[in-house]
Amino acid sequence: MITPNLYYAELKDSYLFYHIAQKTKAYLAAHPGAYLYRLGIGDVTRPLCPAVIQALHEAVDDQADSQRFHGYMPECGAPFLRTAIAEHYRARGTDIQDDEVFVSSGASDELGDILDLFDRSSTAMVIEPAYPAYVDANVIAGRKIIHLESGRESGFLPEPPEDDHADLLYICSPNNPTGAAFNKKQLQKWVDYANTNQSVILFDAAYEAFIEDPEIPHSIYELNGAKNCAIEICSLSKTAGFTGTRLGYTVIPQKLIRQGMSFHDMWVRNRTTKTNGVSYIIQKGGAAVFTPEGQRQIRENIQYYKENARILMDTLDRTGTWYCGGKNAPYIWLKCPDGMDSWTFFDNLLNAIQVVGTPGEGFGACGEGYFRFSTFGSREDTQEAARRLERFLE
Amino acid sequence: MITPNLYYAELKDSYLFYHIAQKTKAYLAAHPGAYLYRLGIGDVTRPLCPAVIQALHEAVDDQADSQRFHGYMPECGAPFLRTAIAEHYRARGTDIQDDEVFVSSGASDELGDILDLFDRSSTAMVIEPAYPAYVDANVIAGRKIIHLESGRESGFLPEPPEDDHADLLYICSPNNPTGAAFNKKQLQKWVDYANTNQSVILFDAAYEAFIEDPEIPHSIYELNGAKNCAIEICSLSKTAGFTGTRLGYTVIPQKLIRQGMSFHDMWVRNRTTKTNGVSYIIQKGGAAVFTPEGQRQIRENIQYYKENARILMDTLDRTGTWYCGGKNAPYIWLKCPDGMDSWTFFDNLLNAIQVVGTPGEGFGACGEGYFRFSTFGSREDTQEAARRLERFLE
Repeated sequence: MITPNLYYAELKDSYLFYHIAQKTKAYLAAHPGAYLYRLGIGDVTRPLCPAVIQALHEAVDDQADSQRFHGYMPECGAPFLRTAIAEHYRARGTDIQDDEVFVSSGASDELGDILDLFDRSSTAMVIEPAYPAYVDANVIAGRKIIHLESGRESGFLPEPPEDDHADLLYICSPNNPTGAAFNKKQLQKWVDYANTNQSVILFDAAYEAFIEDPEIPHSIYELNGAKNCAIEICSLSKTAGFTGTRLGYTVIPQKLIRQGMSFHDMWVRNRTTKTNGVSYIIQKGGAAVFTPEGQRQIRENIQYYKENARILMDTLDRTGTWYCGGKNAPYIWLKCPDGMDSWTFFDNLLNAIQVVGTPGEGFGACGEGYFRFSTFGSREDTQEAARRLERFLE
Repeated sequence: MITPNLYYAELKDSYLFYHIAQKTKAYLAAHPGAYLYRLGIGDVTRPLCPAVIQALHEAVDDQADSQRFHGYMPECGAPFLRTAIAEHYRARGTDIQDDEVFVSSGASDELGDILDLFDRSSTAMVIEPAYPAYVDANVIAGRKIIHLESGRESGFLPEPPEDDHADLLYICSPNNPTGAAFNKKQLQKWVDYANTNQSVILFDAAYEAFIEDPEIPHSIYELNGAKNCAIEICSLSKTAGFTGTRLGYTVIPQKLIRQGMSFHDMWVRNRTTKTNGVSYIIQKGGAAVFTPEGQRQIRENIQYYKENARILMDTLDRTGTWYCGGKNAPYIWLKCPDGMDSWTFFDNLLNAIQVVGTPGEGFGACGEGYFRFSTFGSREDTQEAARRLERFLE
């Protein structure tokens, strides 16, 4: 008699996006032909850049040719891509070796898989509001979870707690959903805390390409001692529009050792046991992102989204609405007006001005009373949504 | 202080392919310009078929166009592909619903991930000789492993043991490395055993496209009661040459329930928590495999490999060498001559006739004295290797 993993029964149902879909569907049924301005979903809308498209076509052609055909790829990533990513770090002044880079199918996949490196007795600390999968993946593993709530008083950038310790620390900066980003001084405190406690930081850097402020680190390895305590998980999803194309990368430094075991070497063993590598075609497309031409082209798309952010921030500034994010991140996190709860604000925006956002409550209890806008929509929709929002908030 | 997953320290080093690489490298260093006939690696060599190439190019073009661009895919698989795969089952007379099919990045990835559904106290039974990752993935999870040895007396197709029980049963048919395949009557005994013991079978069907014999089931769901006890894991790697392109699929029937928990629903939750789906581009390429044109084209490649198998089997028949496989599988598993151990036979083939195969010992202790040939090489190499082998074995 097999026993299922009973921890699945402890997962809370994930109603957030389901509820949003139900509510918008009901609205459209009651208002046939209505147009909705969707600032809710965290998915990109701009197509892949020409350099990536060209590389993908060339890689497909390789797979059609018996001389150029690629079978199994190295499990930890194609050398051409590991080198390109490591050189991208080194060009920014962060000394990462090629073999410290692991190619993945994306950050979400990796955030689930990487937990296999740690004993189930280890505790996980999640700074909330947070991407719900951080918590859920640890519930499935039966780990004790410490919810570290954050709020407006710290700008949603809390300091390490003095009286609470955890083995695994989730840090997402720039943050989803709040758009807040730790500066070097703030993040150094977390690195020091992790080294003091012999914890491991899982640093989600999925939004680093949106950073403008030179005081905000793009990589945790810009901080002293981070190679002794941090795994960095990154993605091309938002950087280069790969949400549906799927590619990411993870850095595990050789220096990251606990109880005499190297997490780097363990991950090599994990990948060679449990995967056969990432698609050759997609890795070729990903490598094009790191060429000078690819970098120039992805910046154009990022600037497009940043202009969307500027339009929304201007509106919030003019209406005196408190918010964070938007400057170094593709998300804007605002305080709902008049002490409104986040689902009421959702309903009001939908019914009054046909704008769809994401209620903060979906990212943890301390997100109640806040609301997330994504800047990944079209310019036209963002502009019209901003106009309607300005009239609504006044 | 975080504790690593200490089970990694219990993994045996995987020397098989490393040793093969070292030995061939040493041979080539000592014999500059020598040509090796490689029948060792289980990787395909024929390019992707034209229907798949065309679909991949079209999908890349979609990603270049803002109107046709695809962002995040449904986590359990694109509906167009889930339907195409389920229809493929139904056309063979196996009633699988679309939503019982989950798209994966490949069978090896899925075989690792799927273990998350089961409690770590569950025991795993592996029929050996076996693909080494079955054992290693369970070592990492800290599971007790029952090694069920098989041998020539059963044609490497053992019956369920009367006195031993396990919660998870690994069955790979047609088998890697032996090429042996259970017929319906034999496999029904395993299904009955699983239902009697309330176990779950992980059925690795990666080589089903090579089956010729109508008595060999392509899917475990051709057996009575299998939907109550089996998960089927399949792949396009060998079926359609996707080893480096990466795509697979998994069937979890709605009926597969233990202790009131539905493994189907748990897997939906796993995928939505821990992945963001498989690349749109690759899924479009995979869907082309299931069109009439794609099916015709992949059969041509499979026939090419089957002709390689026939050439090698003819040689073994003529030399009176015992073997199994080859007929319903891309692998041939032979008894080393004169009671030779498998590494000695490896060395002899390399040094005497420059043919590289895989020593059976690498697939478990009971593989000692046997040897695996792959049929995935070129025709020319296979023919020359067969000629040399015939002279050598005589």
